[in-house]
Amino acid sequence: MRIGGCSRLSTSEPLFDTVIIRFGGEIGIKGAWTRKLYERRLIENVRAVLKHYAIPYNALVRRFGRLYLKTPSAWDAAKKLSRVFGLSSLSPALETTSKMGEIVDKCVYLAGLRLKKGNSFAAKCRRVGKHPYTSQEVCREVGRRILEAYPLLGLRVDLTRPNVTLAVEVREDRAFIYADAIQGVGGLPLGVQPRVVCLLKGGARSAAACWLAMKRGCPPVLVHFDNDSFSGETRLDTALDAARVLFEWAVGFPRELHVIANGLNIAEIVQKCPRELTSLVCKRLMLRIAERTAESEGAEGIVTGDVLGEGSTHTINAFKIQDTVSRIFPVHRPLLGFDTIEIENLTQKIGIHKTVAQEVGESAVALKKLTLASVEDVCLAEEKLNINELVKRSMETIKTLSL
Amino acid sequence: MRIGGCSRLSTSEPLFDTVIIRFGGEIGIKGAWTRKLYERRLIENVRAVLKHYAIPYNALVRRFGRLYLKTPSAWDAAKKLSRVFGLSSLSPALETTSKMGEIVDKCVYLAGLRLKKGNSFAAKCRRVGKHPYTSQEVCREVGRRILEAYPLLGLRVDLTRPNVTLAVEVREDRAFIYADAIQGVGGLPLGVQPRVVCLLKGGARSAAACWLAMKRGCPPVLVHFDNDSFSGETRLDTALDAARVLFEWAVGFPRELHVIANGLNIAEIVQKCPRELTSLVCKRLMLRIAERTAESEGAEGIVTGDVLGEGSTHTINAFKIQDTVSRIFPVHRPLLGFDTIEIENLTQKIGIHKTVAQEVGESAVALKKLTLASVEDVCLAEEKLNINELVKRSMETIKTLSL
Repeated sequence: MRIGGCSRLSTSEPLFDTVIIRFGGEIGIKGAWTRKLYERRLIENVRAVLKHYAIPYNALVRRFGRLYLKTPSAWDAAKKLSRVFGLSSLSPALETTSKMGEIVDKCVYLAGLRLKKGNSFAAKCRRVGKHPYTSQEVCREVGRRILEAYPLLGLRVDLTRPNVTLAVEVREDRAFIYADAIQGVGGLPLGVQPRVVCLLKGGARSAAACWLAMKRGCPPVLVHFDNDSFSGETRLDTALDAARVLFEWAVGFPRELHVIANGLNIAEIVQKCPRELTSLVCKRLMLRIAERTAESEGAEGIVTGDVLGEGSTHTINAFKIQDTVSRIFPVHRPLLGFDTIEIENLTQKIGIHKTVAQEVGESAVALKKLTLASVEDVCLAEEKLNINELVKRSMETIKTLSL
Repeated sequence: MRIGGCSRLSTSEPLFDTVIIRFGGEIGIKGAWTRKLYERRLIENVRAVLKHYAIPYNALVRRFGRLYLKTPSAWDAAKKLSRVFGLSSLSPALETTSKMGEIVDKCVYLAGLRLKKGNSFAAKCRRVGKHPYTSQEVCREVGRRILEAYPLLGLRVDLTRPNVTLAVEVREDRAFIYADAIQGVGGLPLGVQPRVVCLLKGGARSAAACWLAMKRGCPPVLVHFDNDSFSGETRLDTALDAARVLFEWAVGFPRELHVIANGLNIAEIVQKCPRELTSLVCKRLMLRIAERTAESEGAEGIVTGDVLGEGSTHTINAFKIQDTVSRIFPVHRPLLGFDTIEIENLTQKIGIHKTVAQEVGESAVALKKLTLASVEDVCLAEEKLNINELVKRSMETIKTLSL
């Protein structure tokens, strides 16, 4: 019954009055204390989306392990909320009383809108509470009445692979009727983990890595290193595009991009360090600055879009050399084990595919690369720089753009 | 044309004489030097699988950006080789000369085995070299002759969604005919990255994380911490099962599991450290030991099955506290951004789902947990232990099991 959308019902369709909002399975298995915390955060995030998109609603109620949103814009709300991390699925629904007659009437009405000529259908019913009928009786009556109501459509009942499933959920003295479940994004509610600094290069990969950290609960502190004055090729625009897409998944959280001028740093590194080590020295400097940014922003980790084997600064050896500079916060690489095709699928899901150019790696700054360097080589090269001064100067260049 | 298998052709089917082995797309876009290295490693890994499963073959030739394996066990070989990292797909094929008549004859023969009553089919042809016919002429002739040869089957040509596609690849004076493409696992050839220590807990998660690192080229050094003497509950058996499954993906590489006695360590930690910090102290000790093991085994990183938000020792804060002890090698967490359901799908793909029990986390050793600890708290707690001594003693307990 996971149907992505319903072409015949427009978003302004006034038919539905409720959205049934289901939590992800992972929240349900948490201990009581954690679950309460997670659910509270989830409700806050849902409210933020409703406010952000100015979706009118009368009530948002937590009952029976779900959320029930009372709104005249049910379909629109369900679609917008499907981007809230921690939700498994959402169903625009009709609410009615638990009286058999009213349930059946609503089902017939919804069936009339959803069923096409020659379609097969099924009715399913789940109940909580005491009622003068069984779930099976509801299904039988719904099926019978639908067949009776639309004799010209040539409908038939198919319990295994129906075109449309009419679902009835009876909860005490109320009942909910729906025919669609919009898939939620899954994950854990944004904000249940500490913030992390995400290095947003301006490519799809770094944005996808950030999104994965967000999916598991970390609000992102977006940082972009702008190489403009060195390479004359700024990627700030694409980084801004990527940030805007990411913020669609983080409604209610700060919409900021921290831009750090990196051109002078690269120029100095290229001038003073052996050509084959420049990219590693650059990366290490960026991680040092990222760590300072994490401290000042109250973040507790650093996330990069590195993919193992993607290039000469994406080897196990290069990661080892880079990570020694990050002394307080570990570097997380959620895309470590991803293939290119898997990253493409992911960025498409995020909606970042079209707006943001493909990652071009360090080639953008035309630095020579090296696969087999040692930490000692790189430290020796760094002695020619005043690293602390570079970090300090860079921190002073930070511009925070509000999007 | 990606068909998982063909039920009508058994693995002993002598029909095919060749396997066309295609490289993953990521290898093709590497620079010349890297590509050569990767392809050489890939060929070594392919040979290792053929040897391991005693698959007879006459030749393994690299031509036209592919591998051609000459074998009477083509279907069996293709299936076994589909687990070699770096391969995108494999087709059991018939080799013949580039003469039109012979190509068409073989197509008709293969069609007779693959097509069922009422099926639709298409013919596709690609050519390298000069021939007295066009690709289109080949397709037309194949189509015509197949329809002519099986009049009772009621076949029809469908170029967009055929049941069966007869593919013809003409390469200079030879031609290859096939109807199936077995999907390869993708990734990069095992061995193109340095070894990494993988902490194999005995659950599906840690094995899946290890597999992801393998998929991107890292041969694993499998390490299992055995808590037997503390908890009386050994997970060595499931760790051994997991290791055996992983080794099916690493044919030609060492089949060893390093088992470290951890029971005494836990007993001492539980006795001397504050209850709420024991799990973090345990994890840090394991990482220290893992780092020593990495040094002694020539590995360059540590891989764990940690999933963000999975439990109280799987938070951004806990990762931060744990990782400070790993001074040389970074800790990689390929599953960081995965949801439970995604991990389940992955473990099913790996084939680990049935053999290995679900991860039960630290609850197996019944340690109390804490979400909000600081590095300072943990360091203070560790002062009550002789950490260096514990690491040294543990390193002396290592038993290496050959599987």
